[in-house]
Amino acid sequence: MPFDMNLVQRGARLRRSPFFQATQRHGAKAYTVYNHMLFPIRFADFEEEYWHLINHVTLWDVAVERQVEIIGPDAFAFTNMLTPRDLSRCAVGQGRYVVITAEDGGIINDPVLLRLGENHFWLALADSDVLLWARGFALNSGLRVEIREADVSPLQVQGPKAKEVVGALFGDAVVRLRYYHFVETVLDGIPVVVTRTGWTGEVGYEIYLRDGNRGDELWERIMEAGRPHEIRPTGPCDIRRIEAGILNWGADMTLGNNVYEVGLDYLVDEGKQSDYIGREALARIKAEGATRKLAGIEIEGDRIEMNSVAWRVKSGGDTVGRCTSAIYSPRLKKNIGYAMVPAEYSAVGTQLRVKMSGIGERRATVVPKPFIDPKKEIPKT
Amino acid sequence: MPFDMNLVQRGARLRRSPFFQATQRHGAKAYTVYNHMLFPIRFADFEEEYWHLINHVTLWDVAVERQVEIIGPDAFAFTNMLTPRDLSRCAVGQGRYVVITAEDGGIINDPVLLRLGENHFWLALADSDVLLWARGFALNSGLRVEIREADVSPLQVQGPKAKEVVGALFGDAVVRLRYYHFVETVLDGIPVVVTRTGWTGEVGYEIYLRDGNRGDELWERIMEAGRPHEIRPTGPCDIRRIEAGILNWGADMTLGNNVYEVGLDYLVDEGKQSDYIGREALARIKAEGATRKLAGIEIEGDRIEMNSVAWRVKSGGDTVGRCTSAIYSPRLKKNIGYAMVPAEYSAVGTQLRVKMSGIGERRATVVPKPFIDPKKEIPKT
Repeated sequence: MPFDMNLVQRGARLRRSPFFQATQRHGAKAYTVYNHMLFPIRFADFEEEYWHLINHVTLWDVAVERQVEIIGPDAFAFTNMLTPRDLSRCAVGQGRYVVITAEDGGIINDPVLLRLGENHFWLALADSDVLLWARGFALNSGLRVEIREADVSPLQVQGPKAKEVVGALFGDAVVRLRYYHFVETVLDGIPVVVTRTGWTGEVGYEIYLRDGNRGDELWERIMEAGRPHEIRPTGPCDIRRIEAGILNWGADMTLGNNVYEVGLDYLVDEGKQSDYIGREALARIKAEGATRKLAGIEIEGDRIEMNSVAWRVKSGGDTVGRCTSAIYSPRLKKNIGYAMVPAEYSAVGTQLRVKMSGIGERRATVVPKPFIDPKKEIPKT
Repeated sequence: MPFDMNLVQRGARLRRSPFFQATQRHGAKAYTVYNHMLFPIRFADFEEEYWHLINHVTLWDVAVERQVEIIGPDAFAFTNMLTPRDLSRCAVGQGRYVVITAEDGGIINDPVLLRLGENHFWLALADSDVLLWARGFALNSGLRVEIREADVSPLQVQGPKAKEVVGALFGDAVVRLRYYHFVETVLDGIPVVVTRTGWTGEVGYEIYLRDGNRGDELWERIMEAGRPHEIRPTGPCDIRRIEAGILNWGADMTLGNNVYEVGLDYLVDEGKQSDYIGREALARIKAEGATRKLAGIEIEGDRIEMNSVAWRVKSGGDTVGRCTSAIYSPRLKKNIGYAMVPAEYSAVGTQLRVKMSGIGERRATVVPKPFIDPKKEIPKT
């Protein structure tokens, strides 16, 4: 089955990023759709983009991380209701990786949250309409909040030379930001927020544009500062994020999963005093133990192409689960991925089989995540 | 700028329809993404598909109209809160075209609603996560409801020969269904709901599959029944829906619009007794009069290709609005479309200019909608 499909954007339903013209000019070769927007996911060969990310620095248009902005006198109390993380421990100027949970503990989204003021929050979204969830919940909440989409469009600057690029643009104080900290600043008069975040496991920053009319200008300014450091526009890198054990909402976790299944237990602050949506359900799931787990797996044999559907995972002759992401790691020289399986099949060393569309069955073994330990030296070329 | 883009579906984030294999086998040439799913929008030339729709019969995979199911003791009271239509006048076995409204009167979605029982509803969605809106609202509503996605995947059978096809499959009683009525039935043991609905202005039905494992079987059964009537799989037909004055959520109306702006006033039942979300806002907007209107326009000159962004609409030298959809009608031999403009520019006969990407400015005139009156005979070839 061919997955290099011909997308015709028919009509004006799908929104474009403020960086769309720039991505066209710089040779974007493929777009997918994410949060009702066009998302450039490839400028060259996927593996070439991977090597560039781990050896140099890359620029990604992630304006699709649409921003839900929450303000108003009760914005802190309201936002703190949306997530099991304890936001009383998130100071102004800090961010957090959070899950937005449903009343049954399901994962609605896994945004990066930024706290811009005591009662001022942004959520940089994965691919679901959290704006509708939050506005629906607000209706009878009795809390005084305003919830809207902000004119904010992030870019990612990722790779070992990201520090040089961000240093040239914003100076050393910004380079030295700690993880999940941010600053509000301007670049040639363009208002931005710069965060120490990213979707790679490499050194990285995000630059959030705060004026949708200046996308082209900001993009070129970054490219210019990055030229001495061989910056290249690329799509998000699935190889690198899987090596790092990072999950993709919609594939590796959905509304039908909870944090205990997917190994995001650390996103529940056990000591959190105030109530939040899903608290009871999560306490019950934790007490009973998750019945399914997202295990790391290695798949034997020749290099594979990334899956486009969740492949069946078998044990003996029976289908026991699904392989949600699988890809070839050129550094590990192995096929790696995730399998959602009953908890009893999730122990390291468990032997499974993966039924891959168009390839057939292969043996797979449960291994620890992440696949590449950030503290372990691995050759970069 | 080319809009025939190369979509790479990277990873398993985007869901596939139960009819996906069938659409591949039958030669789908382009997919877009809608409600986080792949949506086949073209099997041949768009104009060829248009002529086939108005002269024969066409089959569309619209499983992307994902179904929100609302059940429970308070399902009627809850669902009646979601829309300005008065559902006390919607009997079991009937459906309605409805808007789901936000508290500010904004249009969250415009689904077809089916009432399957006193307290059992389906919403066949346009492209936004109403599941999250409804579940968020339910949290503090005090109403006993269960809201979930149902395993239901619609197909559209549209065109003048749709009656013959539906007759061959389900018999005369189903053919004679009145508009927005439906039946629950089985076809060779496959559970389905058949409705007299569609997105064309032509004769049409929808067949809602109730078992996602039997998509291929149902598709082939319909193709077989349609063979004597020259049935063909096609995408949804923008030319025909615009001729009929039908709007596309996400392009012609969004969360930022209300029914009075887009001419859907009839979706507000003025006599509705019970409360609903957005009631006060809509009453205020109606009393004050909408400040913007979605006008029908004809654009002068040679035939155009459909717009991929909302084009600027100008009066004198000033930008006054946006052209949300525009397309060439082969029957009218005119370029037709919609323009969202200040109310004072929406009177029939108003002269405007449309600035079309890559083409330049053209004169346009406000005309009545729909462009093709269903009662007026227009040559079909």
